[in-house]
Amino acid sequence: MRYFIEFAYKGTHYHGSQIQPNGITVQNVLQDAFFTILRTPVALTFAGRTDAGVHAMQMFAHFDLDMDPPAVERLNRLLPNDIAVYRIFHVADDLHARFSAVSRTYEYRIVTRKSPFTHNTRTYIPVPLDYDAMNEAAQRLLGTHDFASFCKLHTDAKTTICTITEARWIKKTDGAVFTITANRFLRNMVRAVVGTLFEVGRHKLSPDDFEAVIASRSRQVAGQSAPAEGLFLMRVQYPECSAQGC
Amino acid sequence: MRYFIEFAYKGTHYHGSQIQPNGITVQNVLQDAFFTILRTPVALTFAGRTDAGVHAMQMFAHFDLDMDPPAVERLNRLLPNDIAVYRIFHVADDLHARFSAVSRTYEYRIVTRKSPFTHNTRTYIPVPLDYDAMNEAAQRLLGTHDFASFCKLHTDAKTTICTITEARWIKKTDGAVFTITANRFLRNMVRAVVGTLFEVGRHKLSPDDFEAVIASRSRQVAGQSAPAEGLFLMRVQYPECSAQGC
Repeated sequence: MRYFIEFAYKGTHYHGSQIQPNGITVQNVLQDAFFTILRTPVALTFAGRTDAGVHAMQMFAHFDLDMDPPAVERLNRLLPNDIAVYRIFHVADDLHARFSAVSRTYEYRIVTRKSPFTHNTRTYIPVPLDYDAMNEAAQRLLGTHDFASFCKLHTDAKTTICTITEARWIKKTDGAVFTITANRFLRNMVRAVVGTLFEVGRHKLSPDDFEAVIASRSRQVAGQSAPAEGLFLMRVQYPECSAQGC
Repeated sequence: MRYFIEFAYKGTHYHGSQIQPNGITVQNVLQDAFFTILRTPVALTFAGRTDAGVHAMQMFAHFDLDMDPPAVERLNRLLPNDIAVYRIFHVADDLHARFSAVSRTYEYRIVTRKSPFTHNTRTYIPVPLDYDAMNEAAQRLLGTHDFASFCKLHTDAKTTICTITEARWIKKTDGAVFTITANRFLRNMVRAVVGTLFEVGRHKLSPDDFEAVIASRSRQVAGQSAPAEGLFLMRVQYPECSAQGC
């Protein structure tokens, strides 16, 4: 039987979401908790990978199991404070947490004055940014394009073409939030997009320059990656949503 | 010359706000930063005391100094991530951070489902609470009363009479916030009030029982103190606000 697990985590103390040779990851900790309860190994397939320090408000993973899955409350008591499981539910055998997802939404959150409560969950940018220019540039992201400019080199992705359906900055008290939705994201893509939009916000690039960065399909032309701490995976959507409640 | 400093802190890693024999406090860290910059000791008088683990969104302190005060940006670079200075401004010589304050507002924040982002800044209460009953009880707090029932024993306070002008719960997605404003608060008072309101929310006490707890003037009759992590000092007000901008 195939199950989905819906969960959230603060990425500050993890070496990213998915198991890797060095460092504790969210997947390690979750799979260990499953093993403690079930006494059998469970392999989780995540909807996507998040880098070290990046957070998830909503992440899904699937797993196959021939016994009752653990109770959510029991998992939560076992898990550390920075990982919370919300739901475990039965799905169709062919629903795949990664390949069946039709869209992902990320937020990048910044604060413009030092805040004692958000130093791991917002990026502190004390310099003024021109949000109108950043939004004009962000509009150029919309649609289906080759986003190789914003893709980490030496990736194993077969294609660098993505369809972006939402990309906008909203100013808040003491900061701003950038929301971006696409069918898929390349490795490091949101942080590279945000870092390049910061250059637009500081008038080092114009919105037209930004469009040229996209067209160049060269990572060297784009700006530096923005820091991990402001980035949140917010939502992953599946076509079966209405049926499965996900 | 007398100055006010406005600042905020996350209390998780401090043994309260004010200097005490054992443990690092917010006052220690702030005064050390002043000393590093000015090379002369500065004594800060806080608007109020917060216990270990309690946070402040807005705290004031006053100090007297015969040279230019340090620049806010320089203090912030020197201070750890969990303390942020917002302003330092000149005030009248007789404005006292503690005795001139005319009101203080606290919030107590709870979450009803485990959250990876707020485990030090919200109290996790997984059981359902009757907010209507809690609000009916909270109304009985309003006005000028002797609040000895909610005061830590062996306090050095001369009087236990306070005037409460605001006390209400507001339900939010995944939690609730209690806001309480008074001219002054006794030691441990908000946490004792909230802990006793939780008993009303669980139907262990009725709103009338709660009123009887107030009337008893006995700490033994009230409920347990609510945990520190959900408590925030939100605002301190001074009569000179319009003139001083505080």
